[in-house]
Amino acid sequence: MNNTTLKQIASQLGISITTVSKALKGYSDVSEKTKKAVIELANKLNYTPNSFAVNLRTKESKTIGLIIPTLVHDFFSNVIQGILEEAEKRDYLVIILQSNEKLEFEKKQIDLLLNKRVDGILISLSNETGEFEHLQTILSHNTPLVLFDKIAKLVNCSKVTINDRKAAYDAVSYLIKKGYKKIAHFRGSYLPQNSIDRFLGYKKALEDNNIIYDSSLVYVCDTNMDFENGYENAKKIVNEHPEIDAIFAVTDLVAVGIIKYFNEVGIAIPQKIAVLGFSNWFMSSVMSPKLSTVDQPGFEIGRKSASILFDEINLKKNNSPVIFQSIELETSIIERDST
Amino acid sequence: MNNTTLKQIASQLGISITTVSKALKGYSDVSEKTKKAVIELANKLNYTPNSFAVNLRTKESKTIGLIIPTLVHDFFSNVIQGILEEAEKRDYLVIILQSNEKLEFEKKQIDLLLNKRVDGILISLSNETGEFEHLQTILSHNTPLVLFDKIAKLVNCSKVTINDRKAAYDAVSYLIKKGYKKIAHFRGSYLPQNSIDRFLGYKKALEDNNIIYDSSLVYVCDTNMDFENGYENAKKIVNEHPEIDAIFAVTDLVAVGIIKYFNEVGIAIPQKIAVLGFSNWFMSSVMSPKLSTVDQPGFEIGRKSASILFDEINLKKNNSPVIFQSIELETSIIERDST
Repeated sequence: MNNTTLKQIASQLGISITTVSKALKGYSDVSEKTKKAVIELANKLNYTPNSFAVNLRTKESKTIGLIIPTLVHDFFSNVIQGILEEAEKRDYLVIILQSNEKLEFEKKQIDLLLNKRVDGILISLSNETGEFEHLQTILSHNTPLVLFDKIAKLVNCSKVTINDRKAAYDAVSYLIKKGYKKIAHFRGSYLPQNSIDRFLGYKKALEDNNIIYDSSLVYVCDTNMDFENGYENAKKIVNEHPEIDAIFAVTDLVAVGIIKYFNEVGIAIPQKIAVLGFSNWFMSSVMSPKLSTVDQPGFEIGRKSASILFDEINLKKNNSPVIFQSIELETSIIERDST
Repeated sequence: MNNTTLKQIASQLGISITTVSKALKGYSDVSEKTKKAVIELANKLNYTPNSFAVNLRTKESKTIGLIIPTLVHDFFSNVIQGILEEAEKRDYLVIILQSNEKLEFEKKQIDLLLNKRVDGILISLSNETGEFEHLQTILSHNTPLVLFDKIAKLVNCSKVTINDRKAAYDAVSYLIKKGYKKIAHFRGSYLPQNSIDRFLGYKKALEDNNIIYDSSLVYVCDTNMDFENGYENAKKIVNEHPEIDAIFAVTDLVAVGIIKYFNEVGIAIPQKIAVLGFSNWFMSSVMSPKLSTVDQPGFEIGRKSASILFDEINLKKNNSPVIFQSIELETSIIERDST
């Protein structure tokens, strides 16, 4: 009954299409009796308004697009939950795409979303993304865009992040205050702004505390920044730099890899080497030892990004001017057993 | 430039709309020179075909809907990855909704997707879902539907699951073979078919091995089946049944809660009590002790469900008959340190 149209209802009842349409919209110039008959038949025939036709008229899709680097990541799961909660409130639907940290995928997905005429787009950039023409395309379509978490500072749109540099600075200052002196950093790859900022925060905290920055204590993870990166770099560093007493890891997943290696070879955490993560994944609270980490408010980042996007969609609809916002959400250090 | 239409291109070039449309589609009865001019202007104006109008013509949305109970769950993240991979191959988009284990949300979300005229729907039911009228609505709209993981046996559509009863039977038989005799079960809530089946597999394995089934060793988790359920029930059972030597948990998350409690109070795993999970979350391989579990192939479940759905969408498009499939994917036991 997918193709039931107003026409079929009209012809079965022997009335005009206009009358059927008015009856379904509850217009007062149609008799109650006719209304009842139309609604009953529409229900019987499983009539639903054709959203393509409705969209063509209103030029609204009531749909937004979301591109994230990867789903298998507590942080992004939390972000999505925040976004879905805001969308739900407004009866908006969310198309979710995963770039797998690939610039090529991100470009293609933006094309798909623009072709679909979504009302707005939310993106956390892939770790490979170092050029921004595809983002400019969104803006030149006059489609509202909000970047979150992994953003491009040069793109002129609203942004929701944490202050990665300050969060890392606070984290490393905390380690120094706890008495650690030889602090290594397992950093993220060179492109994403947040991995650059976390590195700069690390470096600044050392300098401000009169600890000489030693570039040989900085190990670079690849674009995936995953568990294996932590595991392999941990193996390397205890060999190359047995003198270190703490490691600040760019993500919890990397920190979990470090802990796994240290547990396997019997390096005591935190007595021999302390480990500090970043993000506060669920697993970091249940492993042994429980991981100290920086709490990154994923759910709030999702909610805030979506709510700004919906505001911009509405402003655009009313032809009102949009002022782009750059929001930085607060982070905090969660002290557990690994430091 | 959102509203650039064929008409604008036609009027700027002083040709007919039909010619513009033909030029963009590459028809041979339009000169190369005209084609070039049209394409250049279309690019300059950021023209994209209006998907609402295209949809109205083709009656295809190139979009499918996916409803899952919760995102913050490794298993569903893996399922989504499998679905997105299949959709990507076919240039389909996926609208993802989260029922939060609530029947009311599931109903509303189905209405939204039907109104959106998605080409097909994939659902893993909420733990609350005990009536199926909303699923019948999908079928009466002649919209292809595939249920996966948490299914309703009575609904007439394709289904992709594992054999939960057999997987649980194998898991408990494995524990018995390892010498455990007093095996408790932390089961899921009463509604979802997979939690019923896992319970029945547990019971049958005991009976087939001449161990008398004792209903007081079965603890029921609430609809969330989460970490806290495992933690709280673990606390209860060591008090009420100190004689148990193993626990078979309905999910890894519940098992992680058990392990956390046992670690806190110093109950040795597996020497005093063994713990076996179900699902093989990432975290189960990195915690201490590493959790033995049943591997549930989430990615494959996602891929298979999506690929059946796309087949049915195509069959429907060609007016070919659809034969519903019920696929059961294989599981295996992953032995680690907790058993």
